[in-house]
Amino acid sequence: MSTELSGTSIIGFSRGLANGSASHAVNPASGNQLEPPYHAPDDDEVARAIELADEAFPVYSALPGVRRAAFLRGIADAIEAVVDDIVARGQKETGLHEPRLRGETARTSGQLRMFAALLEEGSWVDARIERAQPDREPQPKPDIRAMRRPLGPVAVFCASNFPLAFSVAGGDTASALAAGCPVLVKAHHAHPGVAEIVGAAVVRAAQEAGMPEGVFSLLYGSGRGVGIDLVKHAVIQAVGFTGSRSGGTALMAAAASRPQPIPVYAEMSSINPVVLLPEKVDADGEAIAEGLFASLTLGCGQFCTNPGLIFLPSGHGEGFIRKLRELVESAPSGVMLSAGILQAYRDSVAAIGGTEGVELIAHCLSKQTAHRAISRVFSVKLRRFLEEPRLHHEMFGPATLIVHGSLEEIIATVPELEGQLTATVHGTEDELRRHAELVSALERRVGRLIFNGFPTGVEVCSSMVHGGPFPSTSDGRSTSVGTMAIGRFCRSVAFQGFPQDALPDELKDANPLGIHRLVDGVQVAGSQ
Amino acid sequence: MSTELSGTSIIGFSRGLANGSASHAVNPASGNQLEPPYHAPDDDEVARAIELADEAFPVYSALPGVRRAAFLRGIADAIEAVVDDIVARGQKETGLHEPRLRGETARTSGQLRMFAALLEEGSWVDARIERAQPDREPQPKPDIRAMRRPLGPVAVFCASNFPLAFSVAGGDTASALAAGCPVLVKAHHAHPGVAEIVGAAVVRAAQEAGMPEGVFSLLYGSGRGVGIDLVKHAVIQAVGFTGSRSGGTALMAAAASRPQPIPVYAEMSSINPVVLLPEKVDADGEAIAEGLFASLTLGCGQFCTNPGLIFLPSGHGEGFIRKLRELVESAPSGVMLSAGILQAYRDSVAAIGGTEGVELIAHCLSKQTAHRAISRVFSVKLRRFLEEPRLHHEMFGPATLIVHGSLEEIIATVPELEGQLTATVHGTEDELRRHAELVSALERRVGRLIFNGFPTGVEVCSSMVHGGPFPSTSDGRSTSVGTMAIGRFCRSVAFQGFPQDALPDELKDANPLGIHRLVDGVQVAGSQ
Repeated sequence: MSTELSGTSIIGFSRGLANGSASHAVNPASGNQLEPPYHAPDDDEVARAIELADEAFPVYSALPGVRRAAFLRGIADAIEAVVDDIVARGQKETGLHEPRLRGETARTSGQLRMFAALLEEGSWVDARIERAQPDREPQPKPDIRAMRRPLGPVAVFCASNFPLAFSVAGGDTASALAAGCPVLVKAHHAHPGVAEIVGAAVVRAAQEAGMPEGVFSLLYGSGRGVGIDLVKHAVIQAVGFTGSRSGGTALMAAAASRPQPIPVYAEMSSINPVVLLPEKVDADGEAIAEGLFASLTLGCGQFCTNPGLIFLPSGHGEGFIRKLRELVESAPSGVMLSAGILQAYRDSVAAIGGTEGVELIAHCLSKQTAHRAISRVFSVKLRRFLEEPRLHHEMFGPATLIVHGSLEEIIATVPELEGQLTATVHGTEDELRRHAELVSALERRVGRLIFNGFPTGVEVCSSMVHGGPFPSTSDGRSTSVGTMAIGRFCRSVAFQGFPQDALPDELKDANPLGIHRLVDGVQVAGSQ
Repeated sequence: MSTELSGTSIIGFSRGLANGSASHAVNPASGNQLEPPYHAPDDDEVARAIELADEAFPVYSALPGVRRAAFLRGIADAIEAVVDDIVARGQKETGLHEPRLRGETARTSGQLRMFAALLEEGSWVDARIERAQPDREPQPKPDIRAMRRPLGPVAVFCASNFPLAFSVAGGDTASALAAGCPVLVKAHHAHPGVAEIVGAAVVRAAQEAGMPEGVFSLLYGSGRGVGIDLVKHAVIQAVGFTGSRSGGTALMAAAASRPQPIPVYAEMSSINPVVLLPEKVDADGEAIAEGLFASLTLGCGQFCTNPGLIFLPSGHGEGFIRKLRELVESAPSGVMLSAGILQAYRDSVAAIGGTEGVELIAHCLSKQTAHRAISRVFSVKLRRFLEEPRLHHEMFGPATLIVHGSLEEIIATVPELEGQLTATVHGTEDELRRHAELVSALERRVGRLIFNGFPTGVEVCSSMVHGGPFPSTSDGRSTSVGTMAIGRFCRSVAFQGFPQDALPDELKDANPLGIHRLVDGVQVAGSQ
């Protein structure tokens, strides 16, 4: 491996000392410890990282967008240059296979380049210009111009289930850096080595692009220790997190109890309901089962958008059930990301399976079960589902629950569901038209509606909404995937009565950046 | 008066019963009670109003924008039709003069029409279309389209200091109704009669426009009673508030402690620092004093943007001080909005005036002081200002504090200020250029920067930012004035794989509404 692992935090452009409490990563496929030990930073190191970010903010946020874009492209290049190191270490730390790790690395560099292109195009700042009307009666109208500006240093928590795309240089980091915010990353204890490899690549890119030192730091240590310390620090102005509901709500509470509360963007739990309409499931049941099985077991079911709840109208979908059972029974068992996640999965399927009225209708028959997860399909009647809150909870892993009831009952149940990242409807186009009420009820509970598709495979693009009502995320007004994610780390600032040469380029009459703007209430196209 | 006052809440299209606890408005100029008594709703009435809003939401949010626009225009017309009633009652309840009440009524109807025009134009939904690429490798790209959708029923709290523009049909109500959210308004106890007149006008407009009954209700009662009940109710999805820091933070705590936390947009306290640069204040000191005096005493100083803190470089601004003192001394005393606000003002100026190192350098010499407020100008040295947290607090009324120090000290002090709605710089253009660091430090503390102007007189337009870092508002990412305010009550929802006829008009290929959209990452102009 070409990247030497030191087991220490990255504090700006320097490395931390190896004298804090230490922990090892563990290979989830074998249970074996991995070297080196990773050391938590001491209080001085955390303070130094925060101080550097505070100093970097005015410098970094004042850079032209194209400079920040060059930095993001530099990170993408630097990560791709160490993809072999990432794959080698990542396979040991996460149980994920090489194609997934290569694919996720490509997604990560792709996200960075997507935000670079957004900065180069420039219109994301939502520039708004209202020109003065000195002769207006009864009062003259002043000249007022507004654009988005970054919030300040951001704390980003790495996710267990995306060691790259939602970790050190993942979506939260990319969108915060794009907005103009320095980032302090809290590494995840399950994949510290991948974090270090990527963190070192970010630092190389920052130095090459001439960025201020504090634009990025990477801290090891526990979420409840270093993590909460970051969230509570006065310098930090926003938080990005992907993980458990308990972890996310703890960060929300810490942020709300600060003297100055700050926004927390926590992506937490979602069971992603799927509604199968009668004509469609009777016509295409086997194909739906194949797609659903693939979605359910992708990445061993460890995706936020995993379809964990399937509504099936009573008396329909016999072929769907038969095919799904056949696929699940013949599926291989899978290595999960960590022993802790595997245990939590086993606990949650035991709890669901032990609930009165719940039947296990299929499970994978693999004999290889040590350190491995077994896919499961449960079923329950809709009335029982409504009575039992436990059945509304996420089983993080390759398991789903089929709920049987009349279509009228299913539609009436939608408002009882918690907030979700996604909801999916399978139907004929005619069924979709006839059940507009179902779609509109689902819309009020979710961030993304899918027709005749599957919720996993979140497209990274300008129209993606990967965020839904609580508890799927802490703030359903936002997305953590796609270009809209940059808005989480910004606020608009207005400039009143400023002379042209004191205005940011985005707001000058001459529009030197050629961006799309709103001028006196009218959309004016850019020149790009 | 043509509007008969009943003293009861408005529950959808019906009136509440007059059997809850009652309180009277009081004429602040005389201390006399005003009839009729206003009754708090009972629990059943509050529950009924919330139930109606919940039922109205799917219907109201599904209406085309032009239908909601017609409703908003109807409210504007209905309010203007009762402006004489508003002025007659408002003068008694608020101590505000007729021209101010007429002007504020015009601002209120103007805001409603501004949001109507925004809906008619339609691009505010931020429509984003990414078309499918079925042949893309390694995975096909799905069709994904997103637009803003309303959050759900919103609770709006009337402000004491704007009985119209930030009350029953004020900015929060207008922006929430525009977004597609039903509104439950909590009336302010200081001007219940104006609230009833405006509330009745809203109901007439709702009925004439064929809106669902629960689109609007108006509730009397206390903020800590009915108000907190509203904020904690599961149906309510967002809160708008303009008032005190203690009131706003109480609502934030209530909203954060719900099983499902919701956003609170509270506009609270701001002292709106003004920095006078040496060359400018020496050249134009008298003119600046005149403008600042007018801003300071406008509406008896009862504006969120009142300039309560003035930084003056030591050894400069002699003429400015002389002129400001002369104007303040010859100013009339003023009637404040309520006895409570007058007492709070007297308490805060007594506290500032009694602080070691603070000097009272001017106060109005009017003999007419019963029920009336006296303008005051204090001064203090910068080092003392930095030591004493009390001097950073808002004095809500016609008082300001001049802080003397070197320009270097003043610039170094900016990061120590709390978040503010506005900051103002008076300087020559050359001084502005030389002190870019001052402007950038101020930018990080505020929502709006003003050059050679005054912070009061908040322009209602597409580029206004009336919102700043905490504690000036609870959520510095938002504004409560101008068209951007609609974004507070929305979230984006994505539609994946939907057939054309099942998509909202805003997202159809044919673009039947002719709105500006982002298509495959490219800004595409509308046809309007």
